[in-house]
Amino acid sequence: MSPLPSDAHPFDAAIALTPAGDDRFRGATSPAYGNMIGPFGGITAATALNAACLHPARLGDPVAVTVNFAGPLADGPFEVTARPARTNRSTQHWVIEILQNDQLALTATAVFAVRRETWSTTEFAPPEAPPADSLQRQPPLPRAAWTANYEKRFLRGGAPSGTRPAADDSQSVLWIRDEPPRPLDFVALCAITDAFYPRIFLRRPQWTPAGTVSMTTYFHADAATVAAQGSAHLLATARGQRFGNGYFDQTASVWGADGSVLATSHQIVYFKE
Amino acid sequence: MSPLPSDAHPFDAAIALTPAGDDRFRGATSPAYGNMIGPFGGITAATALNAACLHPARLGDPVAVTVNFAGPLADGPFEVTARPARTNRSTQHWVIEILQNDQLALTATAVFAVRRETWSTTEFAPPEAPPADSLQRQPPLPRAAWTANYEKRFLRGGAPSGTRPAADDSQSVLWIRDEPPRPLDFVALCAITDAFYPRIFLRRPQWTPAGTVSMTTYFHADAATVAAQGSAHLLATARGQRFGNGYFDQTASVWGADGSVLATSHQIVYFKE
Repeated sequence: MSPLPSDAHPFDAAIALTPAGDDRFRGATSPAYGNMIGPFGGITAATALNAACLHPARLGDPVAVTVNFAGPLADGPFEVTARPARTNRSTQHWVIEILQNDQLALTATAVFAVRRETWSTTEFAPPEAPPADSLQRQPPLPRAAWTANYEKRFLRGGAPSGTRPAADDSQSVLWIRDEPPRPLDFVALCAITDAFYPRIFLRRPQWTPAGTVSMTTYFHADAATVAAQGSAHLLATARGQRFGNGYFDQTASVWGADGSVLATSHQIVYFKE
Repeated sequence: MSPLPSDAHPFDAAIALTPAGDDRFRGATSPAYGNMIGPFGGITAATALNAACLHPARLGDPVAVTVNFAGPLADGPFEVTARPARTNRSTQHWVIEILQNDQLALTATAVFAVRRETWSTTEFAPPEAPPADSLQRQPPLPRAAWTANYEKRFLRGGAPSGTRPAADDSQSVLWIRDEPPRPLDFVALCAITDAFYPRIFLRRPQWTPAGTVSMTTYFHADAATVAAQGSAHLLATARGQRFGNGYFDQTASVWGADGSVLATSHQIVYFKE
């Protein structure tokens, strides 16, 4: 593992990888990002993406990443393979896997690219939202350690309390940032796109086993725009469109404080009735 | 190749694969689904998905598929590998690649599942649309052979004619089906989710090199619901949300004539200014 300073941010400690040769890296789950069972999916996704980011053959920055959660990760060490499957002049395609005890836990693909300024336009807008500081911070959930590592201030669609009635829709709007604050980069942004609890909890506020099966994140911002966010609050939206036959989707967006869209993300989530 | 009847639908001929042992299949591009350069991306995506569908270890039906177009496919034969990377009790994870002359052309992942009826709801609605037959069929584009294999009737956002001014937004709404009509299945639905021309053509009606880099499709319908569509027209929407730094996204939906959502799809597309 690249030696981390003892005061490293818990996020950096959680996604840390040691090169192990031949496209291989070693990592380990972090109790700070534990979920009810196994790690928070967003930290696993960020770790997979981090392997490509750290790879010596890396070209450019992430444009798209898809992670598929194939099986549970137990607390402990794991291995990541990140293979640059094809490198073109300005794009690079990755195939990534996470294994634990020779069992596949995650498959992923990523596309990196050297981006250049072009004509640009945005056809959707961030939601109207009051300043982050004017909204209450949602307390972390004791059963899900990772929630303590995000500051979330919900404008609507806050995590169900267990006593709240079913919502008419599954939309959430919130300000979010790492806790403690940490300068934004692609891997942190990747994790944030998975930091909204399962939409089914809003529509059916009762205990429902649910877990992301596949998530795709598109990065609309280049490295300079991502870095320019610093550790400011980001405005995020998440909503399910269709629930049925044991799965629902979620479409999400993450915006900078200046109103620029940083990432959009889509996932499909298993739920058990 | 499973021997196809001589009157096989051109789609079935185009996605046909011959088992070649050890998770390998042989296929070939089809002139009927050729695009301006190489094949229509949707037929390549459908072929990749077809490899998992035909694999003897297949469990259940597709829930999610992501294809990444890593490099151009030339006209001619290619090889598909489809590896069931992890099979659980009711889900199965696939890693798929297409190679041509030992060069990687496509990486893909897919999640299959045995689906069971659960609580269901839909939080978005199909667009209002008059019957398909009341709209004009868009003529195929001579430069893109594949367009002759779809019947498209646009309500809005039809392919630019070259003389049309830039649209204010990139939204298309259309009725679509295979031409000649063919009973719907998952592979055909997968191809249809890529059958909308690049959104940039609507916003900048001028010749712009553009190509899908990564596409993810979520199947919301089970096999019975897909089959129940028969060869009816499907209602589809497609829209870009953010264009910039050489890439734009597209979010799409495909609905049955009865108003049920069959699939949602997202892609990120390269464009050159």
